[in-house]
Amino acid sequence: MAELDIGLGKSARRAYELGELALLPSRRTREVDLVDLSWQIDAYSFEIPIIGSAMDSVTSPATAIALDKLGGLGVLDLEGVWTRHDDPGPALAELEGLGHDEVLVRLRELYSAPVDHDLVSQRISELQAAGAYAAGSVSPRRVAEMADTLLKAELDLLLIQGSVISAEHVSSSDDPLNLKSFVRELETPVIVGGCVSYQAALHLMRTGAAGVLVGVDSGSSSTAGWVTGIGTGHATAIADVRAARMRHLDETGVYVHVIANGGINTGGDIAKAIACGADAVMMGSALAAADEAPGAGFHWGRSVAHPELPQGVVVGVGREGPLEQILNGPAADGEGATNIVGALRQSMATLGFERLKDLQKAELMVLS
Amino acid sequence: MAELDIGLGKSARRAYELGELALLPSRRTREVDLVDLSWQIDAYSFEIPIIGSAMDSVTSPATAIALDKLGGLGVLDLEGVWTRHDDPGPALAELEGLGHDEVLVRLRELYSAPVDHDLVSQRISELQAAGAYAAGSVSPRRVAEMADTLLKAELDLLLIQGSVISAEHVSSSDDPLNLKSFVRELETPVIVGGCVSYQAALHLMRTGAAGVLVGVDSGSSSTAGWVTGIGTGHATAIADVRAARMRHLDETGVYVHVIANGGINTGGDIAKAIACGADAVMMGSALAAADEAPGAGFHWGRSVAHPELPQGVVVGVGREGPLEQILNGPAADGEGATNIVGALRQSMATLGFERLKDLQKAELMVLS
Amino acid sequence: MAELDIGLGKSARRAYELGELALLPSRRTREVDLVDLSWQIDAYSFEIPIIGSAMDSVTSPATAIALDKLGGLGVLDLEGVWTRHDDPGPALAELEGLGHDEVLVRLRELYSAPVDHDLVSQRISELQAAGAYAAGSVSPRRVAEMADTLLKAELDLLLIQGSVISAEHVSSSDDPLNLKSFVRELETPVIVGGCVSYQAALHLMRTGAAGVLVGVDSGSSSTAGWVTGIGTGHATAIADVRAARMRHLDETGVYVHVIANGGINTGGDIAKAIACGADAVMMGSALAAADEAPGAGFHWGRSVAHPELPQGVVVGVGREGPLEQILNGPAADGEGATNIVGALRQSMATLGFERLKDLQKAELMVLS
Amino acid sequence: MAELDIGLGKSARRAYELGELALLPSRRTREVDLVDLSWQIDAYSFEIPIIGSAMDSVTSPATAIALDKLGGLGVLDLEGVWTRHDDPGPALAELEGLGHDEVLVRLRELYSAPVDHDLVSQRISELQAAGAYAAGSVSPRRVAEMADTLLKAELDLLLIQGSVISAEHVSSSDDPLNLKSFVRELETPVIVGGCVSYQAALHLMRTGAAGVLVGVDSGSSSTAGWVTGIGTGHATAIADVRAARMRHLDETGVYVHVIANGGINTGGDIAKAIACGADAVMMGSALAAADEAPGAGFHWGRSVAHPELPQGVVVGVGREGPLEQILNGPAADGEGATNIVGALRQSMATLGFERLKDLQKAELMVLS
Repeated sequence: MAELDIGLGKSARRAYELGELALLPSRRTREVDLVDLSWQIDAYSFEIPIIGSAMDSVTSPATAIALDKLGGLGVLDLEGVWTRHDDPGPALAELEGLGHDEVLVRLRELYSAPVDHDLVSQRISELQAAGAYAAGSVSPRRVAEMADTLLKAELDLLLIQGSVISAEHVSSSDDPLNLKSFVRELETPVIVGGCVSYQAALHLMRTGAAGVLVGVDSGSSSTAGWVTGIGTGHATAIADVRAARMRHLDETGVYVHVIANGGINTGGDIAKAIACGADAVMMGSALAAADEAPGAGFHWGRSVAHPELPQGVVVGVGREGPLEQILNGPAADGEGATNIVGALRQSMATLGFERLKDLQKAELMVLS
Repeated sequence: MAELDIGLGKSARRAYELGELALLPSRRTREVDLVDLSWQIDAYSFEIPIIGSAMDSVTSPATAIALDKLGGLGVLDLEGVWTRHDDPGPALAELEGLGHDEVLVRLRELYSAPVDHDLVSQRISELQAAGAYAAGSVSPRRVAEMADTLLKAELDLLLIQGSVISAEHVSSSDDPLNLKSFVRELETPVIVGGCVSYQAALHLMRTGAAGVLVGVDSGSSSTAGWVTGIGTGHATAIADVRAARMRHLDETGVYVHVIANGGINTGGDIAKAIACGADAVMMGSALAAADEAPGAGFHWGRSVAHPELPQGVVVGVGREGPLEQILNGPAADGEGATNIVGALRQSMATLGFERLKDLQKAELMVLS
Repeated sequence: MAELDIGLGKSARRAYELGELALLPSRRTREVDLVDLSWQIDAYSFEIPIIGSAMDSVTSPATAIALDKLGGLGVLDLEGVWTRHDDPGPALAELEGLGHDEVLVRLRELYSAPVDHDLVSQRISELQAAGAYAAGSVSPRRVAEMADTLLKAELDLLLIQGSVISAEHVSSSDDPLNLKSFVRELETPVIVGGCVSYQAALHLMRTGAAGVLVGVDSGSSSTAGWVTGIGTGHATAIADVRAARMRHLDETGVYVHVIANGGINTGGDIAKAIACGADAVMMGSALAAADEAPGAGFHWGRSVAHPELPQGVVVGVGREGPLEQILNGPAADGEGATNIVGALRQSMATLGFERLKDLQKAELMVLS
Repeated sequence: MAELDIGLGKSARRAYELGELALLPSRRTREVDLVDLSWQIDAYSFEIPIIGSAMDSVTSPATAIALDKLGGLGVLDLEGVWTRHDDPGPALAELEGLGHDEVLVRLRELYSAPVDHDLVSQRISELQAAGAYAAGSVSPRRVAEMADTLLKAELDLLLIQGSVISAEHVSSSDDPLNLKSFVRELETPVIVGGCVSYQAALHLMRTGAAGVLVGVDSGSSSTAGWVTGIGTGHATAIADVRAARMRHLDETGVYVHVIANGGINTGGDIAKAIACGADAVMMGSALAAADEAPGAGFHWGRSVAHPELPQGVVVGVGREGPLEQILNGPAADGEGATNIVGALRQSMATLGFERLKDLQKAELMVLS
């Protein structure tokens, strides 16, 4: 890898964002109806490589079910408002039209209630009752305590998710989570993240995870880079984690899925993330703009209500249309916020690729 | 070619836009009246290397004829409003002064009418009757069906044009267009595009095309890069296609013309496109700002009215003056929108070049 | 070091700003309570690596004492308003709510009074009486004349500070300051700067200084780069001075502390400065936004009132909260202006580092 | 020289602007009063390396004389309003407060009058009568016709100036200007330009010119780059022309002065231009903002009134203060528009340099 000289004896790699890249068409094109967007992780199959973020502005039980029916996957934040309140719907609906500061005050109230394990079980049941995959996200700090509840409720997919997580967490507690033994012993397949480097991803893969999330709170509602200085270019992170996937596959024969998370808003963004090496993407603000989205026109990460060090802000995302239109169109205009799946399909057709695995070999160009 | 490291095992070339470049004058200068802007393609000669885009905001039969008289070439969109309506003039004139959203509604209505082959023949006759070259643009999807009509009407130049087209289109239909046999068998000389890569251009050249269009909807009215992630820097695309032209010339002895398309607005832009390797340029919004332009002060691509996935927007371009003034001046001000041909001539004089082929050897600098 | 070609026979290094960098997390993380932010310089220990700028908008005797109690160090400008006026407090308080031009007029009046040595002694006594370290900043031009006063008053730490200072100042006066003999003979430990290059830093270290300040008036209130063309990227300057520290340590066995100064506003900025090689940072506008800050919501360098060539402007910084909240939180929002120390701690925990010396080895990425 | 790949088989150098550079201080500093800003060209000596642009918004006979008294050089445009009108002063004064469009209308009227050779002689006499050097600028097209007048009037310094000029101008006229024989035969020392490349500069030097102007209408009032695509980074142009100066000196023993022209507004800009290799600079808009400047708060190049292809615009520059204050201060604020000479002096003192020739060796850094 070429390194840039920051100063005498100090160098750094250049990290690229997806927005700096473009996909280069070549000598073959393809009809849109000959494009296949399906993918699988563990025993689960999906028609489209889109996962709804485990954020309360994006995913309620209802939108998780709706996204499932549209071929994607919704992930419920099992430490969010839906496991803290019997019915947070009315409180979220009241956010509509409020100012950002008022929204923040209400969110702080909502997140001050404790997480209720019974509600965790109930939400999982709601997803199952609707015939949808039940996927939920838990932070590393809580996952051991919640494990029994999750197993009993027969969660399909568990996301162990933090802004940045590692396989080797140094803690002063007597019994810190050993991610490696925890994941290996759990029957439920696990997706872990976020991570942004080759080493971190490789060690997370070695825990036995079925997938890793790539990104460090890089979505529109995150200010982590500004507050803590931590980050990297998303395209570079995806490509580096793809390299870890190749090594892990070579060492173990196991293919760990790479899921790009953060700042992915259009079909073009998805296509570029996959061309960098992702198998699927997690989307936040683009889906928070659905008419059905629980965020009432706003988007936020739970961290926004952190009592000591919030690393995010409430952003207005408006209402772009029903979730189905956002995914499958017809597009309301040429701005890319609607018919995201159609745009991805068009992108692959223009590039001549049939499957997502082919798209991973697309030629990229760096723009200014 | 130097490659940039995007991540471990993933690299990409840097692609440049024309706006990042400048032309470097050297030790010789020349009088403006000793500059020759003429060029030829197939049997057709032109005084200036400017082709009007096959877009309804730019080219009507009347402006095609006007551009012909001024030494350039106008290309009619044979699937646009002029082949869907007996007289779209009044409907277009009514756009004047409307809001962008209203314009879009009207355009959707105009493009919902079917293409009428009789009108195709009639438009070609109108151009011929005025003594102008008759050039028209058809999409790959329609060209086979229209071929008889075009031949019968004795079209001079056929453009087979899509956002991105290839010589090898994978289709599920029983009888997809075989571009190679189609172009070779057609008596009319063909220009095909857009393309942006060496490989795509080389294969398009091998179909027997007289020229290729370089650009992937990169004009001001296009949002394709945002929506689908596809694109590249225009300067790099032109230079790469120029390399394909050299190889094709070496292999076959046939010189295929390279026509840069998209985002070219001033004489300086034309000069830089030619210095990158273009033989001529296609211009859209700059000509849509002519008083005679059919777009009534707006500019759009037909894709803006696509029912499922529009990849463009309606942009306001105003009225800069009569077409003749836009091309030949006198310039209304120092902003470059008028006297585009004079500016190109001045550019070549300052650089000391007599002909366009000389300008292709100009020294370029990359600006920040 | 790779050099860029500016022109034929003229090259230059690329200099990076901290804002162009991000810290890359790797395979280990850590609990926040296992992070240690302490550091020492000479005989003095500090809990946090934050030094308040010797600027009248930031540091009064009261805020120096407050910062000391919070584990940092405040440095009083010994040529500022507190040594020119018995009680500048009321005059500064009157700035509140004034326009920038009026503020400038008042500041010019305040700085037109002469520096009073008795007040210098008195301010040092005030700091000592409160049990705080007494640190003060003097310009190279005045330091010889003030030395007796400072020694008698038993200043703990002396900063000899100019926009840019060197160990070899060419002067027409009969008896210019010989920084090398002056620093060596002085009993008080000395921090000198600013400097931005390896050579300048190395020679300043060889004077016997305990620390060097890295930065050339690069804070928000400085216009030195624009006015005089002098500057460099702060990240590159810190890294180069770190290389000088290594060489000086190798040659002498003495570790000279590197203090980054200018444009450091968040915990993330601090973390990146340390990752580039700094041991501690000096902060201006971030602390000028404290409720207790003497600047009444404004921030300026003393140079703003220079009668001939000011190289700075008055900037509005508002009021972000009490100094304690700015440092230790809780953060008021996700913008990074409050809980700066918490953010630094979180940054190190995410990166898996225990001590500041570990953070100096963090992997950096260059962003666009 | 490192080249960037624009495309396959097409490369270009990166060109830098002065604004992308910073001057790096090193291990020595100097008192401001030990800085010497003097320079000589041919038999003429100047206290400061500042030449007022031959533009009617900058230089009238009165401001040329004022600039001479302040140690610089003013150059009168001998084809401007002062040689077309007996007394253009009132007409220029009436521009004050007009809108940009009205200013343009008035300027077109003023420049439509013919150049009067008697007025040329008279203006030269006015400068001489005041004891100032008489320097005037003429375009290549007019210089042969005016030569007798200029010689008879005993002009001290002749500038042969065009946007871009070359030693080898291809013309259809029977008797084009042979710059080489013209300059060699003329008794008056000549400065020629603009040029921006090594080759162009070398050939201009070989005409026997005493100096060359570096820049291609790159000032704030020029739109040449946009209109014609021609240009380069100013820092790179200066450095390349400096290389030509070295080669010419090596070949002939004659030192040809390099004068940077365009976009130089502060003492820092001057310092950076000299560090790139310039001997002196020509300044336009910075001096057009003087209270005495003839442009009445506006700045323009004569090209703005070109009847066919203007390559410039009228820009508002306001009134920053008397010419003396703009040059020698005191600075009105920290924005760099006043006390330009003081800022240059401060820059050299900070860098430790005594003379301008030393400053040419300063270390430069490239900023983002």
